[in-house]
Amino acid sequence: MRKVRTFSSDTDLVNQRRNHIVKIATEQIIKRGYNNINTRELASALGMSTGGLYHYIGSKEDILYLIINFTSDLTCQSLSRFADEEKGKSCEDKLRDSIRNYFEIVENYRDFHNFVNHIMLSLPVKDRKIVYKAESRVIDYYEELIADGIAEGVFEAQDARLAAHNIIVMANAWANRGWFLKKHYTLREYTDEQTDAILSHLRRSPKKNGHKQLQPVKQKA
Amino acid sequence: MRKVRTFSSDTDLVNQRRNHIVKIATEQIIKRGYNNINTRELASALGMSTGGLYHYIGSKEDILYLIINFTSDLTCQSLSRFADEEKGKSCEDKLRDSIRNYFEIVENYRDFHNFVNHIMLSLPVKDRKIVYKAESRVIDYYEELIADGIAEGVFEAQDARLAAHNIIVMANAWANRGWFLKKHYTLREYTDEQTDAILSHLRRSPKKNGHKQLQPVKQKA
Repeated sequence: MRKVRTFSSDTDLVNQRRNHIVKIATEQIIKRGYNNINTRELASALGMSTGGLYHYIGSKEDILYLIINFTSDLTCQSLSRFADEEKGKSCEDKLRDSIRNYFEIVENYRDFHNFVNHIMLSLPVKDRKIVYKAESRVIDYYEELIADGIAEGVFEAQDARLAAHNIIVMANAWANRGWFLKKHYTLREYTDEQTDAILSHLRRSPKKNGHKQLQPVKQKA
Repeated sequence: MRKVRTFSSDTDLVNQRRNHIVKIATEQIIKRGYNNINTRELASALGMSTGGLYHYIGSKEDILYLIINFTSDLTCQSLSRFADEEKGKSCEDKLRDSIRNYFEIVENYRDFHNFVNHIMLSLPVKDRKIVYKAESRVIDYYEELIADGIAEGVFEAQDARLAAHNIIVMANAWANRGWFLKKHYTLREYTDEQTDAILSHLRRSPKKNGHKQLQPVKQKA
């Protein structure tokens, strides 16, 4: 995770201020575009002086990384707290509950999720890796849940990683395709229906239609 | 579909030039951002004078609609040509083949797909409806295929519209999450695995777990 420079030594205050910066900056950037806003205008929206803002960040670019880190930490902390509460439940219940929990996080922080996915396409490769790593933590979480289910014989997925990735894609779709989905579904309906689709695939019986068993291609990185 | 103003009466030439404009403009806009490029610079990248460019468009904004219409027409024409070739095949084969065809279109025109999804979030509501309508043609196409399968008793989907929507979401994921997916899969592997997930859900047996049958919420628009 990229470290963002600060001159302050009061960690709690820095975190509190940074969360405030993240919230307001995301609103402003979504409204006006990252390239159309400068640090002076951002500081003004935050009710701070430009110098005051530079107390908490090293450059305008740092704001992007604050937003990316904030979104990632928030999601991972919530999933991890949730995992503790779910101990002892069946794999299927854990997966169902944690998908609902994750979809709710995405709904509550949809601006952040949309922003990260939006900005991703225009980031240089080295910086994409920051987002990639952050998101991998969520994919890993689901992959592990699914792998546990496979080990217990409850699931028989051919590819736990792609099934885990699909959960993230479906959550992102709720965030950035709300203009379509919210016309037809409530979040609960969408979550239940998608969870059902995921589980019916994971529970499927072995393929009988002659398609080859997939092996992931050799990983490049 | 929004009509784009031209002063030329030679339809073929206008279309040919507009396709050229779409291709170059998409590259430029993705590289530099829509707000950071003006029509003079676009004309220059196209090897045209600004006046020459205004022969084919009425405003800079028109370029957005050219790109949206181009992407939508291309996809729909291809799916429709494909549907003609597939007559007589089983519902499942039609669905499998047309998903492969669609994923290939998205792969070949991924810049356009990413651009449309990217710009969508910052369009005013009235203009979003243009993208929404264009994309609805693709969703309708799949919904109909799935509904045919349900009518024939091959599929037992609870919600053909969401299943159709998921196909679009999975194709978009290939376009804008290539940074993750291409590390692990070839397009063919991704397509086969996702098609399998979609079909295993459509073929599922009736729910036994007591979740309520979903009814779409009342449509607002």
